[in-house]
Amino acid sequence: MRTVAVIGIGQTKIEEQWEKSLRDLAGEASLAALEESGLPTVEGIYVGNMMSGSANKQMQLGAYLSDWIGARFSEAVHLESACSSGAAAFRTAVMAVASGEINSALAVGVEKMSDSPNAEITSSLATAADADWEVTQGISFVGLNALIMQRYMYEYKWNHADFAGFSINAHANAMHNPNARFHMLINNEQFEKAGLIAEPINLLDASPTGDGSAAAILVPADALKPAPGLKIISVAGSGAATDTISVHNRKDPLWLKAAEMSARKAYSQANVGPDDIDLFEYHDAFTIMCALSLEACGFIDRGQGPKLALDGQIKIDGRIPVATLGGLKARGHPVGATGMYQIVELVQQLRGKAGKDQVENARIGMAQNIGGSGSNIITHILRAE
Amino acid sequence: MRTVAVIGIGQTKIEEQWEKSLRDLAGEASLAALEESGLPTVEGIYVGNMMSGSANKQMQLGAYLSDWIGARFSEAVHLESACSSGAAAFRTAVMAVASGEINSALAVGVEKMSDSPNAEITSSLATAADADWEVTQGISFVGLNALIMQRYMYEYKWNHADFAGFSINAHANAMHNPNARFHMLINNEQFEKAGLIAEPINLLDASPTGDGSAAAILVPADALKPAPGLKIISVAGSGAATDTISVHNRKDPLWLKAAEMSARKAYSQANVGPDDIDLFEYHDAFTIMCALSLEACGFIDRGQGPKLALDGQIKIDGRIPVATLGGLKARGHPVGATGMYQIVELVQQLRGKAGKDQVENARIGMAQNIGGSGSNIITHILRAE
Repeated sequence: MRTVAVIGIGQTKIEEQWEKSLRDLAGEASLAALEESGLPTVEGIYVGNMMSGSANKQMQLGAYLSDWIGARFSEAVHLESACSSGAAAFRTAVMAVASGEINSALAVGVEKMSDSPNAEITSSLATAADADWEVTQGISFVGLNALIMQRYMYEYKWNHADFAGFSINAHANAMHNPNARFHMLINNEQFEKAGLIAEPINLLDASPTGDGSAAAILVPADALKPAPGLKIISVAGSGAATDTISVHNRKDPLWLKAAEMSARKAYSQANVGPDDIDLFEYHDAFTIMCALSLEACGFIDRGQGPKLALDGQIKIDGRIPVATLGGLKARGHPVGATGMYQIVELVQQLRGKAGKDQVENARIGMAQNIGGSGSNIITHILRAE
Repeated sequence: MRTVAVIGIGQTKIEEQWEKSLRDLAGEASLAALEESGLPTVEGIYVGNMMSGSANKQMQLGAYLSDWIGARFSEAVHLESACSSGAAAFRTAVMAVASGEINSALAVGVEKMSDSPNAEITSSLATAADADWEVTQGISFVGLNALIMQRYMYEYKWNHADFAGFSINAHANAMHNPNARFHMLINNEQFEKAGLIAEPINLLDASPTGDGSAAAILVPADALKPAPGLKIISVAGSGAATDTISVHNRKDPLWLKAAEMSARKAYSQANVGPDDIDLFEYHDAFTIMCALSLEACGFIDRGQGPKLALDGQIKIDGRIPVATLGGLKARGHPVGATGMYQIVELVQQLRGKAGKDQVENARIGMAQNIGGSGSNIITHILRAE
């Protein structure tokens, strides 16, 4: 297989985008990425999205987008794995270029959720869980995460306040990211006083949804040079794995086996380990996922995730900086687009173009995108050459 | 890239499957394919589906299925391009194995439509068209095809009765296929007297929806032998292309440019032309698509598609047998599963295991799956080695 490089990125701000349609959003990010790459078009388009069928009454986003961005006749397809749809699109694009089947690809994640009433969004998000064995029992997606967090706190003797650092760090980093949904510092007291959603998860444990799109252009690493002043960013590792879709079917609901397996594949391909990772864009949809992801990827021992936040090791200048441009918690979580925001932000960091959020000498970055309650997890490692 | 072979197939009967869930259907086809392949599991799962989010309140069919069929922890993803979702899953599986990224893949298409009220199905099918520029004008999916057929009949001077042969042939072939939805011969008189849906399309121009699943196991061609008595069936060509999602945006709405382009890619990879194709599983969702597909793939001149049916050249013993096991018209069209039924039927034919529908000495077969009103078309050529 050929090594694949990212030579263009684009993204929209995440917010309630009432003035822009689904096609406007995806087009804006895609055309920005294309322009930066210098390519007039691409041979393949891979669109990550979770809920356009219900929220926007629009499926087949492949053909929908290809014509709109001037890539009519290119091959194009929609990929979906709930909240990891963005990374699924990226991984498929990587394989298409690596295989030699095509020589240029656009991977784009897009989600426009504001058009739907809140109740419908909750119902659409629940399609990421098991319709027969979870959702019909009346549990929502945040409810599932709350059960996991309850058990985790009991098992490893943590208090809710111990998770504050994850959210405080994300909000602090988002202050400098113009594309982030929130520009608002939070503190320990606010974290503890925020309104409950599903005990113990409160508003400041949970990431906000939103409308947005992020995109990247992929080519064979030896085919094209990026624009002057931009480093070559290659895809060093890519791994994907599933776990049971129902949380109750797992022998150990406190261990993200699919996170461990997909990270191991990515580490192995990139020939690196956790100590080599300069920054980690994790999937902080809920604070409990921060802890579980850090543990499964080998950054800290089982049950000890909150310690990294308490000790300040996840900050920009810490041992393993996370959510460096705000993460899902503060940059925002437009579900099917999130995985591509993670990739785009890794590229910003590895290029040394992350502004005040820049991780010094960042050379190897990892992104992990989680679909469902840990049921479909995709991990990528990017490297500045 | 490595050559990829199909070493196992499975399918369910297409009908209203009230006793079986979405997971039962996909599981049944997948496990049958796995059993035939002799493999205990696969490394990657590619699920083609269009409307499970609305019809079954279930997304992320990758993780949903992997656990169910005993392939927990494998990588798995859902692919969608409206009615060509099945072929999109197959093409992605082919690339994943061809690239060397994985050594075994399951491609499966599944759709369970009966759970939804008819009005919701019509609305879900319309998400294949352009929500902003077609559907909000009140046009349905069959309405779009009716406009194309009207124009075609006017432009090339055909009568509605001239299309009868496509449906009569499909129903005749389905008589011998136990998995087909219809086992019912039709004649010219019935064709002309069938109730109108959207002029000139009547009930016997249109394919029936249904519940069903079809699956195939893919491996590197040199890695494994199929079960004794079964030929090696390799993927000789694979091509995909898009066109405008809105029909009105095409300069020539009577030419399926994406069919032509994807077929050309597949021909070129397989190093064959239309004259080398022993049978063609086309996308006869509506009779007009039969004519347009045959023309775009080079089996007959522009505007002359119905001639092939009138002359009996599309029959099992004709020059270019089509819909050999009933096609969408009579085998049935469970939308996201259809592309995989086409692949599975090609394999049956190329193995010489198509029973009374067997095309004599079939060695090279082609399948073309159409998403939207010609907006996302994927063509595969399979060869018996």
